[in-house]
Amino acid sequence: LVDITHEVDPYDVGAAAYLIKASYSYFPMGTIHMGVVDPGVGGQRRPILVEAAGNYFVGPDNGIFSFIYEQGTELRVIHLTAREYFLKDIGATFHGRDLFAPVAAWLSKGIDPVKFGEEIRDPVKLPLADPKVMGNRAVEGRIIYIDRFGNLITNITQRHLSTLLPYPIENIHITFKEQILGLKRFYAEGSKSQPHAVINSCGHLEIFVYMNNAHQILKASVGDPVLIKGC
Amino acid sequence: LVDITHEVDPYDVGAAAYLIKASYSYFPMGTIHMGVVDPGVGGQRRPILVEAAGNYFVGPDNGIFSFIYEQGTELRVIHLTAREYFLKDIGATFHGRDLFAPVAAWLSKGIDPVKFGEEIRDPVKLPLADPKVMGNRAVEGRIIYIDRFGNLITNITQRHLSTLLPYPIENIHITFKEQILGLKRFYAEGSKSQPHAVINSCGHLEIFVYMNNAHQILKASVGDPVLIKGC
Amino acid sequence: LVDITHEVDPYDVGAAAYLIKASYSYFPMGTIHMGVVDPGVGGQRRPILVEAAGNYFVGPDNGIFSFIYEQGTELRVIHLTAREYFLKDIGATFHGRDLFAPVAAWLSKGIDPVKFGEEIRDPVKLPLADPKVMGNRAVEGRIIYIDRFGNLITNITQRHLSTLLPYPIENIHITFKEQILGLKRFYAEGSKSQPHAVINSCGHLEIFVYMNNAHQILKASVGDPVLIKGC
Repeated sequence: LVDITHEVDPYDVGAAAYLIKASYSYFPMGTIHMGVVDPGVGGQRRPILVEAAGNYFVGPDNGIFSFIYEQGTELRVIHLTAREYFLKDIGATFHGRDLFAPVAAWLSKGIDPVKFGEEIRDPVKLPLADPKVMGNRAVEGRIIYIDRFGNLITNITQRHLSTLLPYPIENIHITFKEQILGLKRFYAEGSKSQPHAVINSCGHLEIFVYMNNAHQILKASVGDPVLIKGC
Repeated sequence: LVDITHEVDPYDVGAAAYLIKASYSYFPMGTIHMGVVDPGVGGQRRPILVEAAGNYFVGPDNGIFSFIYEQGTELRVIHLTAREYFLKDIGATFHGRDLFAPVAAWLSKGIDPVKFGEEIRDPVKLPLADPKVMGNRAVEGRIIYIDRFGNLITNITQRHLSTLLPYPIENIHITFKEQILGLKRFYAEGSKSQPHAVINSCGHLEIFVYMNNAHQILKASVGDPVLIKGC
Repeated sequence: LVDITHEVDPYDVGAAAYLIKASYSYFPMGTIHMGVVDPGVGGQRRPILVEAAGNYFVGPDNGIFSFIYEQGTELRVIHLTAREYFLKDIGATFHGRDLFAPVAAWLSKGIDPVKFGEEIRDPVKLPLADPKVMGNRAVEGRIIYIDRFGNLITNITQRHLSTLLPYPIENIHITFKEQILGLKRFYAEGSKSQPHAVINSCGHLEIFVYMNNAHQILKASVGDPVLIKGC
């Protein structure tokens, strides 16, 4: 059992989706990942099991696995309905304990995924996963996660930059809140008072202020737009 | 080793008592639970080991196991005095490390509980454990814990409602800070601006605001009274 | 795998150094301790492996192991340069994942420390490790860490008091922010409104207010001086 984090802000499904993407591939094939940021618990949202290239994900169907669906790998999503794999007294407010953890435990014992329920084709995807290609050879992304250092992580990845923009990465213009940001290779290359950008450890474009808190300095929020152009 | 939480507020023994109640029964029989919220460390409070229906609890005798004493099961409480099971250099400020963890470790090796000290009959109980039955067929409870979502957990349980009040649960009136709260089955049935109540995953009556923070909206504090009447 | 803490404040290398000192000796000989508070990641600071009296420490060479260097034990510090023990795609911003954790994992598999790189003699030491001996038989230390209870931990240890000052410990004067503090044996001996000092569980002089928050009451900061004299 490895506890990745219990510090996602309440109801922030987008942050959870990013953190799952950022960590799952560093675990061995066959790992069962459980994620629960779940404002809709007890309501209409479905409990699901996702199988993707030999890895497993258990949680609510609220978009928490959005980035997993985009990895371009073989994918199977199962609606968890077989109550014999849940706790007997299943409450209405804590499916992490009563439903997802027991399913993950049974799965670890070798139960075939198809035994947990029916395959579905329409899992919920968050709109945060892809930046928009704009006219004039530009890309507009947005902030999807702010970490505890105050770094602002965008939904723009190195792959987006190389496939969507006809510029070498050194020649792009990054605009955030009317400031032009230079692209650095690592944090210590940045300034302690001015924001810069970096391709972070998850391959995402990230806005930071070295040894400081970009979140506070820029008064940034999740959802704020970031514009990339050639120069 | 499973770390339930390190996020109880300093000195909040009542919150720890609730969290122990909320989690212990989901671990296998024979589990050793260690809890340390311990403002009295080094002073007169006794270190204890509680054995209750095949489960073990190690910690300070300051009321942290109050809810365990109320489960109505066979109970044995031992005052930990056998220094050979403590660390050699026992400090005055960190019994979690120097006393409770070593005792829990020895216990896990099969040492008989009676070897750790003498049985006692007067462990400390917090006054939070039972709501008051009022005249006029009403019950007054209070807030005993506020979770990280801002939900307000009371000491009124489903069992209290069914044994103390002659009303079906649908017909009760819940009053908190001059507001009448309706009882919902799960969070998503509530409103995003008005408080409602729910029977939570631990069987306690809990006040919430859906996708919002009841603690902030209601300016609530631990200890605030909640009144239940028929209607 | 034991997670000591993920709650060191961003960039607070001194706090991390103290926490490593406070915990490492309670693990079995041969334990591998990994610490990463690393504002300089990707820059010039070296990644290192420290071997000290049969224990191992893996992390950045930024002073995080300062207290380990002072234990007076046989010491070997190796600059981690053998890339075959790192992840293949090593990012510029997350050496905990890409470099330190893989080295710790290989070390746990029995790889000889010398295989990871060359020995160095000049690891970085923080200036916080030793209090200053002043004229007039006094010692000036300072606050090096503030814990979540608001307790103020100084760099003055019981050993400093016994070797640097010709007074029995009961007869010392402790001055902090123009207040004279008495030395107590444990927290519950202190006052709930006035600060006192205690020798804490790590052997350091610590300033506290019983059941209260010395950090807030005294408006203290890391780096603030503490003066000890005879009386």
